[in-house]
Amino acid sequence: MHHLERFKKYGRIEKELARNLLAEFFATALLRFIGTGVMAQFVLSRGASNSPIQINIGWGLAIALSVYVAWETSGGHVNPAVTAALFILGKISLVHSLLYFVAQTIGAALGAGIMYIVYSEAINAFDGGVREINGPNATGIIFASFPQAYLSNIGAFIDQVAGTSLIGIFVAFCCEPKNQIPRNLMPALFGTIATTISMCCGLNMGSPVNPASDFGSRILASVSGYGIQLFTVHHYFFIVPLLAPIVGAVIGAYFYQFFIGLHLPEP
Amino acid sequence: MHHLERFKKYGRIEKELARNLLAEFFATALLRFIGTGVMAQFVLSRGASNSPIQINIGWGLAIALSVYVAWETSGGHVNPAVTAALFILGKISLVHSLLYFVAQTIGAALGAGIMYIVYSEAINAFDGGVREINGPNATGIIFASFPQAYLSNIGAFIDQVAGTSLIGIFVAFCCEPKNQIPRNLMPALFGTIATTISMCCGLNMGSPVNPASDFGSRILASVSGYGIQLFTVHHYFFIVPLLAPIVGAVIGAYFYQFFIGLHLPEP
Amino acid sequence: MHHLERFKKYGRIEKELARNLLAEFFATALLRFIGTGVMAQFVLSRGASNSPIQINIGWGLAIALSVYVAWETSGGHVNPAVTAALFILGKISLVHSLLYFVAQTIGAALGAGIMYIVYSEAINAFDGGVREINGPNATGIIFASFPQAYLSNIGAFIDQVAGTSLIGIFVAFCCEPKNQIPRNLMPALFGTIATTISMCCGLNMGSPVNPASDFGSRILASVSGYGIQLFTVHHYFFIVPLLAPIVGAVIGAYFYQFFIGLHLPEP
Amino acid sequence: MHHLERFKKYGRIEKELARNLLAEFFATALLRFIGTGVMAQFVLSRGASNSPIQINIGWGLAIALSVYVAWETSGGHVNPAVTAALFILGKISLVHSLLYFVAQTIGAALGAGIMYIVYSEAINAFDGGVREINGPNATGIIFASFPQAYLSNIGAFIDQVAGTSLIGIFVAFCCEPKNQIPRNLMPALFGTIATTISMCCGLNMGSPVNPASDFGSRILASVSGYGIQLFTVHHYFFIVPLLAPIVGAVIGAYFYQFFIGLHLPEP
Repeated sequence: MHHLERFKKYGRIEKELARNLLAEFFATALLRFIGTGVMAQFVLSRGASNSPIQINIGWGLAIALSVYVAWETSGGHVNPAVTAALFILGKISLVHSLLYFVAQTIGAALGAGIMYIVYSEAINAFDGGVREINGPNATGIIFASFPQAYLSNIGAFIDQVAGTSLIGIFVAFCCEPKNQIPRNLMPALFGTIATTISMCCGLNMGSPVNPASDFGSRILASVSGYGIQLFTVHHYFFIVPLLAPIVGAVIGAYFYQFFIGLHLPEP
Repeated sequence: MHHLERFKKYGRIEKELARNLLAEFFATALLRFIGTGVMAQFVLSRGASNSPIQINIGWGLAIALSVYVAWETSGGHVNPAVTAALFILGKISLVHSLLYFVAQTIGAALGAGIMYIVYSEAINAFDGGVREINGPNATGIIFASFPQAYLSNIGAFIDQVAGTSLIGIFVAFCCEPKNQIPRNLMPALFGTIATTISMCCGLNMGSPVNPASDFGSRILASVSGYGIQLFTVHHYFFIVPLLAPIVGAVIGAYFYQFFIGLHLPEP
Repeated sequence: MHHLERFKKYGRIEKELARNLLAEFFATALLRFIGTGVMAQFVLSRGASNSPIQINIGWGLAIALSVYVAWETSGGHVNPAVTAALFILGKISLVHSLLYFVAQTIGAALGAGIMYIVYSEAINAFDGGVREINGPNATGIIFASFPQAYLSNIGAFIDQVAGTSLIGIFVAFCCEPKNQIPRNLMPALFGTIATTISMCCGLNMGSPVNPASDFGSRILASVSGYGIQLFTVHHYFFIVPLLAPIVGAVIGAYFYQFFIGLHLPEP
Repeated sequence: MHHLERFKKYGRIEKELARNLLAEFFATALLRFIGTGVMAQFVLSRGASNSPIQINIGWGLAIALSVYVAWETSGGHVNPAVTAALFILGKISLVHSLLYFVAQTIGAALGAGIMYIVYSEAINAFDGGVREINGPNATGIIFASFPQAYLSNIGAFIDQVAGTSLIGIFVAFCCEPKNQIPRNLMPALFGTIATTISMCCGLNMGSPVNPASDFGSRILASVSGYGIQLFTVHHYFFIVPLLAPIVGAVIGAYFYQFFIGLHLPEP
């Protein structure tokens, strides 16, 4: 008997919730692992190795691959905004949604942490060992989003609601069987949407659009050398990417339903 | 009963035309929302955040996603040139075509308007609050197409006929069942075509190829600070992207039919 | 009766060869139309509007779209190298192959010519009306391939054999039903291969890999202002992209067969 | 009888192992041929012809195309790390795995060698005939990976384990039928993963993640003018891309199984 079959016999998790939380944890770790690497490669090479288009495409690939990985288990939310849209659409309970958020956030922290290890020598060579979020040797943006200097936190909130509404629209779109999107192409579609958002709503604050990815990674970086400034900077800006995506995804899901979904012709 | 089911019971639109116009409105708003953001990110970062390839790909993604969203309702034209080609092919009546154009134009104005709000702080930081269409702080191109200085309006007309003919060719191509393009991949194909046009016919005037997107957004910008110059500039250039794409799409559809479509072998 | 149906009744071509030649003519015109535009946008903007990656991707899209357009008629060769590989594989006769070559070459000339008109004002603004193939205002590369100064014509021949062998390999690959590539994805695959060749074999001479596209467009440009130097330059270099791709495609097709195809396991 | 049919009658290899080794040899040659060309175009044009994004995408296309070519024969491993993950999953024996490695390495050497010929004039024009791995005229990176100066070999090992774990995760993912990934899209998925790794784990040492591709090509270059320094440089760094990917792929495959695969719900 193959050793993985033997493990399956004794170690397999049969409880759906546990299995789903583990999948969300793993997939969000994968998402943030890739995403953090994409940012690190851009920042640490001062744009020589990755340019903005690689950030756009890299995050899209991170989403597509991480959603695929958990697709047949938890559905591969990897983003509390997706979970929120699915809650509004009646696909998941509130309690499960909150547990998903916890699993996603811990996963994001872990994924960012592993990539931190991969690039620790590179970061030290870049900043001489002093972690900063401002100035020419700043590396904070590898782990968390920051607003442009001109941006108010209200403007940031609007930005994230607008950007994440695209996610909400397409979560509702995919949930509608009349649209006949093949199930196994949906993760690729969500990757495409992440790339799109990053190309049209990326200027103001880098389009985090994912509370777990931004918050989990921010905590990890904060306790690993960047300090409390990751949370206090720009009048506690960190709250914006934590809350606004939830609002945006819910608005997007309703928009799709009210303008299109509810009126779709019967086949 | 889920609250969306309840809404569906009372609020669902059963009239096909109304449903289609609402879908065209929403989808074209989505298209111009994304497209305007892509342009804003390029202009306001002075090319640091988006480069021309992101404009090419970003508009392609905008087309693909917006066509998908309305695909099973109105067919996701989101462009009067597409509607014109389908009119020539006998798929839509003239009256419905004109109503589609109105819905698309209003949608484009709204989509551009929402993105204007998202980037209002960024635009103010860029131009100090003075909206311009010329000079180093010009931002007009975010909302409407402009010709190169060397280009005559006749040359511009030829450019748009040539570019949009690609759309007409592939609208006719997709309407032909013998080509066996899977229905749910067609919106992705149209996104690809938009990217292609932007890479081969983008130099002279930025390949608007969409009267509703260009005109609707131009009106919005005109009444929101850019003024009447958006229409008077370059000898009333705005008429070119309003009319030429219709001509180009019709020519393209006929070209496909006369060179290929009508002679396709029977299966 | 719809006017296109009426035309079909009287104008439809029933002879297979005529229909195929018309399709090859049209599709190769489309290919060279797009490709010429991609090059023009790069050259005339001095790299500001298109960069090398857009040339790679733009030619790939040109191939994919033009192959799709003729796919269900002639098979969308649009390249005598493809025709040559299919001849070796026994899918087309020698006489038909030669006629395809003529149709493809005329199509390429026409496609390049139309894009020449689209960009005529831009080219005049760029070079002041003097067409050149050398120096800072050279525009010849828009219409035909040129070798790097260091390259011998023997080196150029090797380059084109190597590059085009990729086309031959995948023509043979797609002809083998055991590979189970869905018929309607094959044109996209050939676009991908064109992009790949342009990324790995583009430095020495710009990877023309298509005798019809290079030769047809070269004739058109030669009689439209660029003169006979398009043929005499670099010791009659033009012969290389005319002959080498045929050799490369045949070698590639045999390579696939000898290393893989002939030994594929029975299902 | 067509001459290829005649060859098939007499020359067809019926033994599965021989056929598979030939396929791995050919496919890995194809992979390294394309990959070497992508690197050469970048290095020899000093970034003018290819930029980092073309390296990311070019290697992804190289993987996708080479995996497709051998897909229905050997399964298109083209990478000992893939073979190792499949060994752990019980899909291939140890002896066959080792033979695959030999075939892949010889293939990589040949593929790199052919591209060396294609670019020999270009390389001579670039470095004046003196092959170097350091300094402004260094070309060694065309054929083999090198670490950044700041990187320890332990850091390099961690980098490769992390990067290649993505391959292991998705090999295990694709082997699980419950994920319902269409068989003929899997090679494209592996190309996507190669692009992703190159965007997130490419800074430290260029993400070789393939022992055969790196080692085979390194041997070829070493005996073709670059000398023994390709092996001695950076404290025998070459061992890292030879061993670490095996470890990473195995870890990735187990990670997928323990976090997701073993707990997948029954359909």
